[in-house]
Amino acid sequence: VFSIKPLNSHNSAKIQQVIDSKTKPLGALGELEGLAKKLMLIQSQHGDLATTKLTISKPSILVFAADHGMAEQGISIAPSEVTRQMVLNFLHGGAAINCFCQSNHIAMKVIDAGINIPLTTTEKSVGEDFIEQRLGAGINDISKTSAMTEAQVEQGLLYGKKITTAVINQGCNILLLGEMGIGNTSAASAILVAYSQQSVEQCVGNGTGINSQQLSLKKQLIAQAVSRLDREQILADPYYVLKELAGFEIVQMVGAILAAAEQGIAVLIDGFIVTSAALVAVKINPNVRDYLIFAHQSNEHAHQLMLSMLEAKPLLNLGLRLGEGTGAALALPLVNAAASFYNDMASFESAGVTV
Amino acid sequence: VFSIKPLNSHNSAKIQQVIDSKTKPLGALGELEGLAKKLMLIQSQHGDLATTKLTISKPSILVFAADHGMAEQGISIAPSEVTRQMVLNFLHGGAAINCFCQSNHIAMKVIDAGINIPLTTTEKSVGEDFIEQRLGAGINDISKTSAMTEAQVEQGLLYGKKITTAVINQGCNILLLGEMGIGNTSAASAILVAYSQQSVEQCVGNGTGINSQQLSLKKQLIAQAVSRLDREQILADPYYVLKELAGFEIVQMVGAILAAAEQGIAVLIDGFIVTSAALVAVKINPNVRDYLIFAHQSNEHAHQLMLSMLEAKPLLNLGLRLGEGTGAALALPLVNAAASFYNDMASFESAGVTV
Repeated sequence: VFSIKPLNSHNSAKIQQVIDSKTKPLGALGELEGLAKKLMLIQSQHGDLATTKLTISKPSILVFAADHGMAEQGISIAPSEVTRQMVLNFLHGGAAINCFCQSNHIAMKVIDAGINIPLTTTEKSVGEDFIEQRLGAGINDISKTSAMTEAQVEQGLLYGKKITTAVINQGCNILLLGEMGIGNTSAASAILVAYSQQSVEQCVGNGTGINSQQLSLKKQLIAQAVSRLDREQILADPYYVLKELAGFEIVQMVGAILAAAEQGIAVLIDGFIVTSAALVAVKINPNVRDYLIFAHQSNEHAHQLMLSMLEAKPLLNLGLRLGEGTGAALALPLVNAAASFYNDMASFESAGVTV
Repeated sequence: VFSIKPLNSHNSAKIQQVIDSKTKPLGALGELEGLAKKLMLIQSQHGDLATTKLTISKPSILVFAADHGMAEQGISIAPSEVTRQMVLNFLHGGAAINCFCQSNHIAMKVIDAGINIPLTTTEKSVGEDFIEQRLGAGINDISKTSAMTEAQVEQGLLYGKKITTAVINQGCNILLLGEMGIGNTSAASAILVAYSQQSVEQCVGNGTGINSQQLSLKKQLIAQAVSRLDREQILADPYYVLKELAGFEIVQMVGAILAAAEQGIAVLIDGFIVTSAALVAVKINPNVRDYLIFAHQSNEHAHQLMLSMLEAKPLLNLGLRLGEGTGAALALPLVNAAASFYNDMASFESAGVTV
């Protein structure tokens, strides 16, 4: 149902020429140059390049929250209740992601994609940017059974598309994604095991800080989860992988990523869990990759493997392991800086600088 | 003449307690946590911690420009004229550093520390934030003779202190440093060779992009420069190293760093050349190190060696090799983010989140 065009590279040489005409040695702005080029390629698909400036308009983050049945087996540092408590913390403005959105001027919406216990009417009324798109009361325990039904996968993708389309209609042209869900590094790791065919040793980490006993159990349960699956079906059908292993927040993020690419805007990918959604989105439609910017490398070691499967080198590497979209929010100023130099730096000619 | 106190760590445990009470897993904000702690240690030296918030007030960058006699031997991608042309570009707002200051809300001052030909009265009148603190018309060719006199070293340190004190008096509590000077990676490399006792192979790089023939000449000239020096005097007297090898912009940056530390504010160190100034400042007074934040790792490979001598791990690693303070300007949003989470994140208790 998603129609995503690959980026047309017909403007590529002209964009590079603009970058190379700026008053700096060739390539001296490092990764910011590739970032500016990519953004300009995305934004100039249908425009006249000569009159197009890079614009960063109403950057918005969608933070999807959901619960995970497997968390009841004690494979996280905190109980499932904390997912809901953190959603309330988001609405009251007290979480790290609130601070970084504030300091970097990012609009934030919090989505209940399926936490165990929905917010009460009073609780919801606190934040105006709360959206309820529940697919259920947390996914099933994936070590035992399918995470969700096919119908839930379909509904989740549509929910992700719906909220993304809404923020784009409000003027957003760069989408940031974040998540909250006790137990969701396990779902992300299970997706990684399924696609990478690497061992659980390679694909499973400490999450936000579990001990070695919990880690050992986590690995065992993830191995169990993936062993339920049919290998040929994994490779043939990404929706099957979502149905079997994804969280409600992950499936909605997959829908959000696909919708953003379909509508031709860039998506700033956060850490381990958001990257797992990106991995599935790219399996659904490889053209999606053209629209993705990777914000940061997580402290979760398996993130490196996931990133390499997407041939991605993130902008930041600060040892973060928090989620919520904090890495994406922290990377936004680099996106703004890339736009700023592309739009406003003088050329050698205009500045009278000797080449 | 600089009286610099080491940071008193009496608040350290209390600051860590504040950070650990925030609604996030322990350590989950990675390097931002250490950054917040360091800033708070600096800012709480004389304050009551309980009522002190981290403040980032009027972040200001000083961009010091000067010329280098050795550049006449053709060891850069551009001729010395470009130093002056880029100063004019700064004043007209067309350089990369202007763009990043604009996008990250940083005040910028450009200092003529000794370019070959001073600006005319008309040229100076363009930018209101131009300061003339000339030590001469470029340093001597260091491959042949001393860079400058002892009197110039002394005057340079005082000039650096003067402008730093002025911006602090205007309300700045975080100083960013940048530079422009065709040939100045050679001076920085020479300082590195002198202090590290590593080979020119280890200490000299491509700067902003010279070819292999130029690189070979550059290495030879830097080896010549350092071979003029007395090893015991290098180790005993940092002012001697400045006199023999530093650029006018480097010596003024050493003065700026010492003055900022003396007055108890943090300094955001840019790339290879600014780091060479930091290296000398720390040799003059090791207490300076407590006030330094390293913004980015340059694409110049020897920067890694220099950083390791200062036990520094920079915030960003974006393959930049431009100078001007661009890396420092790009890192400022991370400093703001660190302050934001330290000041504004809820605690587990206040947010009602289960520990």
